[in-house]
Amino acid sequence: MIRLYTWSTPNGRKVSIALEELGLPYSVHPVNIGKDEQFSPEFLAIDPNNKIPAIVDDAAPGGPLSIFESGAILTYLAEKTGKLLAPSGPERYAALQWLHWQMGGLGPMLGQLGFFAVRSPEKAPLAIERFTTESGRLLGVMEARLRAAPYLGGEDYSIADIACYAWTLAATTFLEEALGDKLDGKEAIHAWLDKVGARPGVQRGMAVPKS
Amino acid sequence: MIRLYTWSTPNGRKVSIALEELGLPYSVHPVNIGKDEQFSPEFLAIDPNNKIPAIVDDAAPGGPLSIFESGAILTYLAEKTGKLLAPSGPERYAALQWLHWQMGGLGPMLGQLGFFAVRSPEKAPLAIERFTTESGRLLGVMEARLRAAPYLGGEDYSIADIACYAWTLAATTFLEEALGDKLDGKEAIHAWLDKVGARPGVQRGMAVPKS
Ligand SMILES: N[C@@H](CCC(=O)N[C@@H](CS)C(=O)NCC(=O)O)C(=O)O
Ligand SMILES: N[C@@H](CCC(=O)N[C@@H](CS)C(=O)NCC(=O)O)C(=O)O
Repeated sequence: MIRLYTWSTPNGRKVSIALEELGLPYSVHPVNIGKDEQFSPEFLAIDPNNKIPAIVDDAAPGGPLSIFESGAILTYLAEKTGKLLAPSGPERYAALQWLHWQMGGLGPMLGQLGFFAVRSPEKAPLAIERFTTESGRLLGVMEARLRAAPYLGGEDYSIADIACYAWTLAATTFLEEALGDKLDGKEAIHAWLDKVGARPGVQRGMAVPKS
Repeated sequence: MIRLYTWSTPNGRKVSIALEELGLPYSVHPVNIGKDEQFSPEFLAIDPNNKIPAIVDDAAPGGPLSIFESGAILTYLAEKTGKLLAPSGPERYAALQWLHWQMGGLGPMLGQLGFFAVRSPEKAPLAIERFTTESGRLLGVMEARLRAAPYLGGEDYSIADIACYAWTLAATTFLEEALGDKLDGKEAIHAWLDKVGARPGVQRGMAVPKS
């Protein structure tokens, strides 16, 4: 059984979506980051980086295996099952490329935009401008990719789409006002959001943890 | 032969270090980001995300393979050679976890600190404070890891160490003043920097591209 330590945020949902898509049994352990539960000794023993998500696979060969960082967890789950990531060849590295692009680009930049433009009571116009511009650039790169291929990794749905889904959805909801016109005309992104969002596994994963 | 598109920055050096450590033949194609060469049509055809590093492996099975995102490139090179990343088991996922931690945490946060605290003529105190605090937190997490294990992935030197090396070195040089006391007492990090920095492959990789 896999234990999932998570909260109702885009990075947490990546992992619940993957677990649902793969049909792996798991238990949900909510870590309420609004109440600083990520700093509890129990959670820090699993994830010294004090950020959700994290998993423990109690059935891993050789004994329980803890992993933090959503990109590493997605890769582990895909390799454990042989699904959602090609085992070799160009499609494997296209998917890993877009996974890392989400981890190092789309995620942190939209995350910083959320802090500076939405959550922070104090306003820093230089930071808002920087993260709005960079988020718009990233969404433009994603739009071009999705005009050229049905999924980020190419022909097949993969962990790259799962990684990008919850963040791109946040861009169209929580961050929509901050992004202004940056989502206008992004028809391929909107069509991909509808297509990925219609998958039953994605819908189940987005409902974890129960609120 | 592998073509490497790079510049003299931490993200570029990750890949030249890995190529040197692995002894793979490669040609260097400097992309001067100070002159906006990352927006040239030639480079955008390889890397539509307009950021170095990128590679093209002309000898990949099935034809030339382009990859951008340093974390994906490091994974590709490790899997191509069967070195610097365990093929399975706990050490594989520990290394991938710290690789993603660098890609989504240490890299972007030190990068933003460099922009707000060093490069930007206009100052936003809220942003400087945010990225100084988060960078200090990340360096604390890394220090604890390196007190518990000789390398980030565990017993063996891996692509996780390569990914973190050039950024951690930047923290002790270019970003030292901005970080204030955040590096004080980080003895395990300093010892690891010395140990990794003494490797001939790391020294050769850090000298690419020639200036
Ligand atoms: N790169 C990490 C980012 C994780 C992350 O930022 N988690 C946030 C919630 S979405 C968190 O736990 N924040 C609590 C904190 O920073 O103390 C991943 O993808 O797993
Ligand atoms: N997540 C990317 C980040 C790459 C990156 O930020 N590259 C910088 C130089 S270190 C760049 O090319 N900047 C030029 C630009 O943004 O236009 C990676 O690790 O490959």
